[in-house]
Amino acid sequence: MAAPYADEIRARFGEAVLPPAGLAVNETLRRILSRRSHRRYADRPVPADLVRLLCLAALSASAKSDFQQASIIEVADPARRAVLAAPFPAMPWIGSAPAFLVFCGDARRLERIGGLRGHDAGNAGLEGFFNATVDAALALQTCILAAESLGLGTCPISVLRNEAALVARVLDLPGKVFPVAGLCLGWPSGGDVGDRLEPGHVSLRLPPSLTLHRDRYDDAALAAEIAGYDQAREQRHPTPRDKQRAPERFGYAEAYGWSEDKARQAAQHEGAGFAPWLRGQGFTFD
Amino acid sequence: MAAPYADEIRARFGEAVLPPAGLAVNETLRRILSRRSHRRYADRPVPADLVRLLCLAALSASAKSDFQQASIIEVADPARRAVLAAPFPAMPWIGSAPAFLVFCGDARRLERIGGLRGHDAGNAGLEGFFNATVDAALALQTCILAAESLGLGTCPISVLRNEAALVARVLDLPGKVFPVAGLCLGWPSGGDVGDRLEPGHVSLRLPPSLTLHRDRYDDAALAAEIAGYDQAREQRHPTPRDKQRAPERFGYAEAYGWSEDKARQAAQHEGAGFAPWLRGQGFTFD
Repeated sequence: MAAPYADEIRARFGEAVLPPAGLAVNETLRRILSRRSHRRYADRPVPADLVRLLCLAALSASAKSDFQQASIIEVADPARRAVLAAPFPAMPWIGSAPAFLVFCGDARRLERIGGLRGHDAGNAGLEGFFNATVDAALALQTCILAAESLGLGTCPISVLRNEAALVARVLDLPGKVFPVAGLCLGWPSGGDVGDRLEPGHVSLRLPPSLTLHRDRYDDAALAAEIAGYDQAREQRHPTPRDKQRAPERFGYAEAYGWSEDKARQAAQHEGAGFAPWLRGQGFTFD
Repeated sequence: MAAPYADEIRARFGEAVLPPAGLAVNETLRRILSRRSHRRYADRPVPADLVRLLCLAALSASAKSDFQQASIIEVADPARRAVLAAPFPAMPWIGSAPAFLVFCGDARRLERIGGLRGHDAGNAGLEGFFNATVDAALALQTCILAAESLGLGTCPISVLRNEAALVARVLDLPGKVFPVAGLCLGWPSGGDVGDRLEPGHVSLRLPPSLTLHRDRYDDAALAAEIAGYDQAREQRHPTPRDKQRAPERFGYAEAYGWSEDKARQAAQHEGAGFAPWLRGQGFTFD
């Protein structure tokens, strides 16, 4: 008998990572290990009651100190959806997914509660921003996994942060409420688009030797591990020369792979406008 | 027949929130809706292979732009565990849970990859910090829900951030790698401790009228909603006078409840040391 999760772990982490021995298979773990984003959806609505239920599940996530600093906006109005989607023509699913949620960090509520109770719970510092961010992310991931347990496909949309001012205007976000990510929801259709993925492909992850440490952080083998990872990814999904990122700035690389692509992407600092916008919303990051 | 999820939604959000109609019951959603932290564990180990599997599941979470900026440290060495637990005598489960993980935001790796590829992927700004934080939180929540699907109990430990320098020293965290939260794992024992919860109680959440918005953020009814929520929580679990927070600073309140407690807690800014420590680790938050 094959080791449990062997296929899922091979697809996710490559050949070198051994599956654990002697564990019974659990469907939730199998689903998580082979999870992926879906960006193309069947022409079939997600019932409003179901969306609401998924939001209630999301709000059941842990919250730092029980401060409950996540807020979710369901974008049901087609006109608002269209405005949110307009800056991202390369991601048409933002406008077309059957349902769309925006998960927000909400440092405002706790501050207002302080005002109601006569205590100065000023929440503009890094602490408030960080705690609200984490709360929203925990709710987002809970929503994703709850949706996937029903067979729904999801795609988190972090790029919304690059247009935070627009998002805030469209959704009436007040100060100290900020988008962490959008989330597309729908029933997956057969095919899918984006990231050069074919249906059924899961994204190969970095070797756990880099991401999973025992007792102490150790990335001494980074260069060699990244080289091997680049190779393994290119073997699965070679990058055509015309898909190299921003050649007008970086030229063409002979050996292109994940690390070259991500280094180029990071060097462009596409989210650089988020911090100034957050400061305008009242955060000081002190 | 009762509406699906009616019991779970009543326990989580109170009497006023109607369960959605016409949906089939899914065990994952039911489990999420009635989830809670567990802080007391049976004297039964969590196999090392299982901990590793849960970490692999965690690393299967989405990652912003495929940058993969989460790192997990499994703290297996009892001596290190003891040092991490020492500052928190009120939370003995940090030291005693059968397994303990630390989920870190890792803005270092991408910066090093930029160096390997010769692109300046400087990752010290708010963008890098934020993206790494969210990645770690998504991995954390995935680990929590994966563990709970197996019957394990978990307790996230965000208070670790208040001792970030100690955590970094014990786990050899280099610059731009920072703890988002610890996570205790174990098989739940019958009883539990902390937060005045009795076995089986789930934490009542804020009314969705405050946390779940349609098309636009609206907290105009905050004061009234919070008053009702305080009342509902106190009805379930009255706060004894001697459990009021920090009376030496705030005195005793006649009507004490969640909002008074959280306003007091927030006014103390217990995580105020995190930002200066992060700046010392190289973040600029620009």
